[in-house]
Amino acid sequence: MTPHVDSRAGAAVKAADRAHVFHSWSAQGLIDPLAVAGAEGSYFWDYEGNRYLDFTSGLVFTNIGYQHPKVVAAIQEQAAKLSTFAPAFAVEPRSEAARLIAERTPGDLDKIFFTNGGAEAIENAVRMARLHTGRHKVLAAYRSYHGGTTTAINLTGDPRRWASDNGTSGTVHFWAPFLYRSAFYAENEAEECARALQHLEDTIAFEGPAAIAAIVLETIPGTAGIMTPPAGYLAGVREICDRYGIVFVLDEVMAGFGRTGKWFAAEHFDVVPDLMTFAKGVNSGYVPLGGVAISGAIAETFDKRPYPGGLTYSGHPLACAAAVATIQVMEEERVVENAALIGETVIAPGLRELAERHPSIGEIRGTGMFWALDLVKDRETREPLVPYNASGADNAPMAAFGAACKKNGLWPFINMNRTHVVPPCNVTEAEAKEGLAALDIALSAADEHTTAA
Amino acid sequence: MTPHVDSRAGAAVKAADRAHVFHSWSAQGLIDPLAVAGAEGSYFWDYEGNRYLDFTSGLVFTNIGYQHPKVVAAIQEQAAKLSTFAPAFAVEPRSEAARLIAERTPGDLDKIFFTNGGAEAIENAVRMARLHTGRHKVLAAYRSYHGGTTTAINLTGDPRRWASDNGTSGTVHFWAPFLYRSAFYAENEAEECARALQHLEDTIAFEGPAAIAAIVLETIPGTAGIMTPPAGYLAGVREICDRYGIVFVLDEVMAGFGRTGKWFAAEHFDVVPDLMTFAKGVNSGYVPLGGVAISGAIAETFDKRPYPGGLTYSGHPLACAAAVATIQVMEEERVVENAALIGETVIAPGLRELAERHPSIGEIRGTGMFWALDLVKDRETREPLVPYNASGADNAPMAAFGAACKKNGLWPFINMNRTHVVPPCNVTEAEAKEGLAALDIALSAADEHTTAA
Ligand SMILES: Cc1ncc(COP(=O)(O)O)c(C=O)c1O
Ligand SMILES: Cc1ncc(COP(=O)(O)O)c(C=O)c1O
Repeated sequence: MTPHVDSRAGAAVKAADRAHVFHSWSAQGLIDPLAVAGAEGSYFWDYEGNRYLDFTSGLVFTNIGYQHPKVVAAIQEQAAKLSTFAPAFAVEPRSEAARLIAERTPGDLDKIFFTNGGAEAIENAVRMARLHTGRHKVLAAYRSYHGGTTTAINLTGDPRRWASDNGTSGTVHFWAPFLYRSAFYAENEAEECARALQHLEDTIAFEGPAAIAAIVLETIPGTAGIMTPPAGYLAGVREICDRYGIVFVLDEVMAGFGRTGKWFAAEHFDVVPDLMTFAKGVNSGYVPLGGVAISGAIAETFDKRPYPGGLTYSGHPLACAAAVATIQVMEEERVVENAALIGETVIAPGLRELAERHPSIGEIRGTGMFWALDLVKDRETREPLVPYNASGADNAPMAAFGAACKKNGLWPFINMNRTHVVPPCNVTEAEAKEGLAALDIALSAADEHTTAA
Repeated sequence: MTPHVDSRAGAAVKAADRAHVFHSWSAQGLIDPLAVAGAEGSYFWDYEGNRYLDFTSGLVFTNIGYQHPKVVAAIQEQAAKLSTFAPAFAVEPRSEAARLIAERTPGDLDKIFFTNGGAEAIENAVRMARLHTGRHKVLAAYRSYHGGTTTAINLTGDPRRWASDNGTSGTVHFWAPFLYRSAFYAENEAEECARALQHLEDTIAFEGPAAIAAIVLETIPGTAGIMTPPAGYLAGVREICDRYGIVFVLDEVMAGFGRTGKWFAAEHFDVVPDLMTFAKGVNSGYVPLGGVAISGAIAETFDKRPYPGGLTYSGHPLACAAAVATIQVMEEERVVENAALIGETVIAPGLRELAERHPSIGEIRGTGMFWALDLVKDRETREPLVPYNASGADNAPMAAFGAACKKNGLWPFINMNRTHVVPPCNVTEAEAKEGLAALDIALSAADEHTTAA
């Protein structure tokens, strides 16, 4: 399929959507969802013939882009063979997906519990940690997102938690390292790292080490701003966890499966967690799938004692077949290597060059196909271009930036005062450059809201 | 595909499963999952050439049986067209699935929030109820199952809750009507109904009506034993909810989409809840999908105020395309009507006839393709054939019953002292009779453990 005009079809899709679809995270009466007609690779298009370069990878999940023919074919074949089967059985795509994932996860994370998505992965990781330790509290970071179900949203450290937080779930938040907006008045990465670890130690001491089941961290926090932790931080957390018998959970729902230019972001830091959650990139979201990779010691806990958790579609054959095909495509086409290469040779220098010319860029951060531009009113004060959790008129500068991106054929990922550059991991050099050119124009709209304007 | 022997392939699937797949609700070292090679309609088969009539519909989700060619084709077509797309957009299968579901749901449940499965549907229904009412407590029944995520498992009224229940989630359990094992010493359905409603009223009075956001009930509780509520009970609950401003949530994850011989079980009782959860039968589990159907009044709450919940795969195009095709197939092939007809003309009389000859059958209950046999040691005392939540040697009578079913080519649904007869809703008369014949033999194994033996 290619872009073409079919306004009538688009209007019908839109009308049924407005009549019957209740959308995530939205005021239903105030949204105006774009009707999408098709997509391929790094692009999608609407019913009016407008094509967009997708610098969001959906919600950062289409790591191999849209409609990869080999994964489409694998879904079609599995659908013809065995679309669905209950979780208590051994079925080929479930076995094979688990094997391929376990082969790639770090350390001894060799048992795979499958879920439908990221939130359920976090729910189950926390349950495993609680039962493994016999403790209840879980520590998580401000500036994080872990999903929409009760425990996952309570662990989340962004405003999406507020409405659902009843303060009763044994979750405690702490501050993770983020030098550009340091919670610790640090002046360099080494200082930020040391102070963040001290802060975590102190928090543990005051919460009671023997009460803490788990520390849950995104390896590199995603939606919250792509803050790559300083060298030594995650190793320091690992050491703290070992010292207190706390389960270390790394959430790689967004950072995993090639996004950072490695199979898993943990590889950048040479740490092995006890549990690792994944979803999204595992099959590029072609069929809903997530899961938890489990260490030998924790799996052992549930060897003779039943694991008290589950779901109807655990290890869904169609979802697992899509994962098998996706992992094979990523190997064959060197998608992970491409993410690293284009990140280093095109995106990083391109963003640096934009930062030289655009006063609205406060900081650029990232690696692989995982980049954030922290937009500011003023480079000196680092005041964000819009206030935390802004909406309406307060958010006008970011809205203007977003509109300018779209006008120039780029679909941007925007969260608060940031735009993230998170195209598919198999993006080409030409596509990356096309996106940077559109960003260049849109950033001029943002510049107008800076003190430099 | 048809059954044939391929032991080598089966061994490989099994080996990778045992090495890498962590299964739901199980002691990983004590399970021996059957490797399944294929399935069609009401049957599946292993790698040794053994074929089984599936009286479980997976976990009660393949309402149209395995591998329906029209739904397989629809999945293949949607995969080729647009496998995945982010939730904030209008896409055709999402719009169409929402429209077809809203057309069938009772009353004004016309807005559809899509999830990946049943647990997430419950999580979101509870969030909606809490924010709509500004209250926190949620009442749910003993003898229920609502899913594995934190709020869903806390609402659950069976032993799967125990390990995850920290008593902190604002959930309160009460007793629902169940004449055969009455909590109210009732002697007939009318008395059971009146006393169960009085018990609910009293519980609400002591929990504080103004503190209660929602009452969550399975319309006909499924896994817990298929206890059809007495005439008037659900209407009574509806009236109580209206009186106290409590949101009435019906969970139709298992009972919905034809299972009871109607599109939704609520139709049997002429009640319209404020929120209705669904999953499973919506697309027969061919692709993970669930959701919440939302009343006008609750949708209105989130018209200008953002709904603070969501998930990456809300309204997944492939899952929605499977739902559209499934609903069309169910209409064209009169699958709902078939469930009602075979239930009434084959299953009900067949089970009654078995009950005459097998002293282990204490009660048969159900409707449509949704039946339970409550197995007992003694018909007079109604002592269950095995104790509540039995395992190991205590559970031997049910294990013997299950083994006899399998030996006779029937894959049974077993929970505690019950077997459920829950074949696909498009089961044929011949298949239903074949299953009843196998049950007949297996029940003789159960009879040996009764006082009559
Ligand atoms: C790091 C992280 N964890 C968990 C989740 C939740 O995943 P899902 O939306 O599939 O439930 C997300 C989703 O964006 C995520 O980015
Ligand atoms: C009535 C009911 N509600 C909720 C659920 C949970 O659904 P899922 O396993 O898809 O999360 C189930 C699953 O069996 C169910 O039967």
